[in-house]
Parts: sequence; C-alpha cells; structure tokens
Amino acid sequence: MGEQEKWFETTIRVRYEETDQMRVVYHANYLVWFEIGRTELIRELGFSYRRFEDIGFMLPVSEVNAKYKSPARYDDELIIRTKIAYCSSVRLTFAYEIYRAVDQALLVSGETGHVWTDMGLKPVRLEKKAPELYALMKEYES
Amino acid sequence: MGEQEKWFETTIRVRYEETDQMRVVYHANYLVWFEIGRTELIRELGFSYRRFEDIGFMLPVSEVNAKYKSPARYDDELIIRTKIAYCSSVRLTFAYEIYRAVDQALLVSGETGHVWTDMGLKPVRLEKKAPELYALMKEYES
Amino acid sequence: MGEQEKWFETTIRVRYEETDQMRVVYHANYLVWFEIGRTELIRELGFSYRRFEDIGFMLPVSEVNAKYKSPARYDDELIIRTKIAYCSSVRLTFAYEIYRAVDQALLVSGETGHVWTDMGLKPVRLEKKAPELYALMKEYES
Amino acid sequence: MGEQEKWFETTIRVRYEETDQMRVVYHANYLVWFEIGRTELIRELGFSYRRFEDIGFMLPVSEVNAKYKSPARYDDELIIRTKIAYCSSVRLTFAYEIYRAVDQALLVSGETGHVWTDMGLKPVRLEKKAPELYALMKEYES
Repeated sequence: MGEQEKWFETTIRVRYEETDQMRVVYHANYLVWFEIGRTELIRELGFSYRRFEDIGFMLPVSEVNAKYKSPARYDDELIIRTKIAYCSSVRLTFAYEIYRAVDQALLVSGETGHVWTDMGLKPVRLEKKAPELYALMKEYES
Repeated sequence: MGEQEKWFETTIRVRYEETDQMRVVYHANYLVWFEIGRTELIRELGFSYRRFEDIGFMLPVSEVNAKYKSPARYDDELIIRTKIAYCSSVRLTFAYEIYRAVDQALLVSGETGHVWTDMGLKPVRLEKKAPELYALMKEYES
Repeated sequence: MGEQEKWFETTIRVRYEETDQMRVVYHANYLVWFEIGRTELIRELGFSYRRFEDIGFMLPVSEVNAKYKSPARYDDELIIRTKIAYCSSVRLTFAYEIYRAVDQALLVSGETGHVWTDMGLKPVRLEKKAPELYALMKEYES
Repeated sequence: MGEQEKWFETTIRVRYEETDQMRVVYHANYLVWFEIGRTELIRELGFSYRRFEDIGFMLPVSEVNAKYKSPARYDDELIIRTKIAYCSSVRLTFAYEIYRAVDQALLVSGETGHVWTDMGLKPVRLEKKAPELYALMKEYES
C-alpha cells in the first residue's frame, strides 16, 4: 500500500534479562515488544490501553505469529513498527516489524489477533459499545 | 494419524508471576511452556537439549504461531502435549497443545519452527554432523 | 533449632528462558522460585494461596533479600527449601534455601517479608479475620 | 559525600507483562529495573556494561535486597534513581530508589551487591586488570 500504510514507530533497548544462554534475545520477549508497539500506537491515536480497561474493555490476544530472521542482542537499540492490519467491530489485528536501529536490519516480523471483550473476557461489539473508538481504530486501519 | 501420532505429555503448574492484570496467564508465557514441552520430549527420546549445546548444536526458533482458545489461570495444572511435526536435516517443527488438567479443556495450540545451527548460529546439516541423532528425530516424526 | 525446624522441600528444573548471556540463571528468577516454595509450603499445610485470594486475602511482598553463592544453570534440577521464619497477625516472613539436586550445593538463600491485606491491598489482622488460618500458620512457624 | 550524592535518573514505563493478578507489578520485576538503572548509570559514566563483557569482565549479582512501599501499576511512568554506594577493587554496591513520575511517590528502594569476575565467573581485582575503569567507578562512589 506504500504511502498509505500507517506504521507507527517506537524504540526500546534490549535488557540483560531478555537474553538467554545463546547470547541472543529469548524468542518469547518479542511478543512483549509487540505489546509495547500496540500500546504506543494506541497512545499515538490519543487513547491508552489503560483507559480501555478503565472503561470496561479488554483486548486479549487470540492469535500470534512471528518469524525470526536475525537475533537481537543485549543493549541493542530496536525500532518497533506497528500498524493496524485489520479492524472490525469484533476483531483487531496488529502487524509488527522489529528492526535493529544501528543498521536498520529487520530482525522479526509478526502479527497478533485480538478480540474485544468485557472485563469478564466475554466478546463485545466495539461499534455498539464505543462507536467513536471504533471509528478511530477503523480510520487507522491500513 | 491416530495411533501413529507420537504426542509426548508433560505437566506444569501456573506460577503467580505468569499471570497479568487480566487475571489470566500473559500470552507470551505459553511460548516458554512450548519450550518445556520440546525439552521434555527430547529427554524422553534419550537425549537432552543441554547435551545438544554441549556437543556444539543449537536449535534456535525461526518461527512461532499460537492460537489462544481459553485462558489458563494461576495455580492451574496444565498438560503440555508435544510432537515432532516435521523433521529434515536442516529444519525441525514441533506442534503443541496445552490442556487444563482438571477438565481436559484445550487452552492453546501452536507450532515452533527451528533450524539446526552451530554455536555461532550458522545453519548446519544434522544428517551430516550427527547422523544417529538425525535418525532418532526422524523416526519420531509424526 | 535443628530438628524442630520445619523446612518444606519442592523441586523445579531450570528453564532455558531463565538463563541469560552469562550462561547462568538471571538473578531475578530466584524470587519467582521463592514464590513457588511458599506456594507449595502453603499447599502442604492443607491450604492454597489461590484460596487465600478467593476468600479475600492477599499476601503481597513487602521486603526481599537474597544472597547468591553459586549459579544455577540451564536444565539443573533444583531443590527449594522453604520455612515460615516469623508469623504474626499482620506479618509473615518466609526463609528459603535453593540447592542444586545433583550435589546438594547451596546456591542461593533469602527471605521474603509479607503483609496480610484485603483485595484492595489494605492491611488486615489475620487473627481477627481468619483465626483458624492464623493458628495454622503460627503452629508451623520455626 | 553527603549533599553531592550522585544519583543518576532514568525513566521507564510499566509493561502489561510486568503486572500480575493483584493488578500491580510483580515484585521480581523491580530487580530488572534495578539492572536498567545501573546499566544507564554506567553508560552515563562513558562506559557500557556491554563493553565490560567485550573486554572480559562480568559483574554478577552477589546480593540483593528491596523494600516495597507502594505498588507500581500498568502504564505508570517510573523514575529509577541509581548511585554507586560502595566501590572497591573487588566489590561494587549500587543503591536504587524507584519513584512514580506523576506524584514523585517512592515505591521501592533497594541495593545490589556485585563482584568483578572474568568470563568464567572467577573473581578479579579491577584495580589491577583495568586501573582507569577502577578510578572512574571509584570517583563516582557516593
């Protein structure tokens, strides 16, 4: 989609705790970074995931996939690129790409699928419960 | 498939640390449990992942996917079922299913793809470097 | 106190995720293992920490200390020894020792201090709110 | 040094993964944040912990203590204050205070003790092996 694609970027630095004895980042940590990517994207939209929960919504993960191309290492500065790949009244899919800042190498790409739920983890229709928020997410969909 | 399928089972109990403020297990932890599943499967085969590294092999994750059907909660006893879904001289794919012990509900299913590498993360051909190990893995492939 | 000391033992195995690039266990993980020690001690007493929360109590950590003598490594089997070092109606202190199973080497020792609270993290007097539970904990105090 | 105390400040934001079902941050995560504090302090000194390891030194944790006064919550912005409390040729102690940015409330304080070692975890005398680095650390001691 080229110029229309709405990637949002945020940066992090790899923590010692995130490495393992292969001397690279343990693979599950990229999922935590995906979470940071979508949190910061939502903040950029003028909302916050914390507020979602304050007003009675949750956005649990229903699906995840990740492809590991090259490893991140301790103290690397990384760029997390996030976009809304799909948005409906019941589902939301984010796409992610994680780059090493120093040479812009793509390390990992992935997606997470989510379902809008109430605080009891029951699915809700966002369009009905929060039409403005729905419109906002929908507009940002790539 | 049926009787030929070689699922290996191991059990764990959910740690407090693995929960999040949704009062369920944080989704990235299932990847850690997948790792326990394949570690114990390899041990069952008479080998150990630790020994892989001692003799100069590593098995980094190149790909992962997971589908979350129902959440695990603190102190739940879980059954991790693991099998070798695909094995070649360069690649290995494990499949996993995680069940809640008390009612046998399927919580999460997924797969991890791996590449055989040396300690410098360079790909190696297992069949060439360790033919007996290759035969062992191959035989266990479902 | 010698023979009167009421240590409870449970075993775990080190996960790959718990290692770091020093090729030993990352130090914060021992706190997670302390938590497993006290959880299993409480279960041994015929209760469960999960039930504490179900009946409206929490036992947040108010203080922790740990001394690291020797490192645990990937796939090591470890023994967690736990006892109730101090118990009053408002406070509880657990002591821990973590040993490597294969040679009984002491790796880490430590303590965690806790306060009985309600679900809103407000302190409560256990003796008043749950006298039988208080008696049970008190009796087990070393 | 009294009023000249050399606290170094860095900020982080609480990740969803760091919460637990008490709806506050799981206590072991503060140790990870202490690590970020000392990493950034060392960077401020013109060095980097990564470089320590590149030139053959490690600084494993030998001791830790923490006092938890008030809980951090999801998405809170936190200030980590770190100083070198003690420095000798063989040992290093960092002190930490973690504040909530919004109201400057002190949440947690603590210390970590470290030993200079070689890559095989054998103790070394920093003054002998790297006199300039030793002088640098020593000067910054509070």
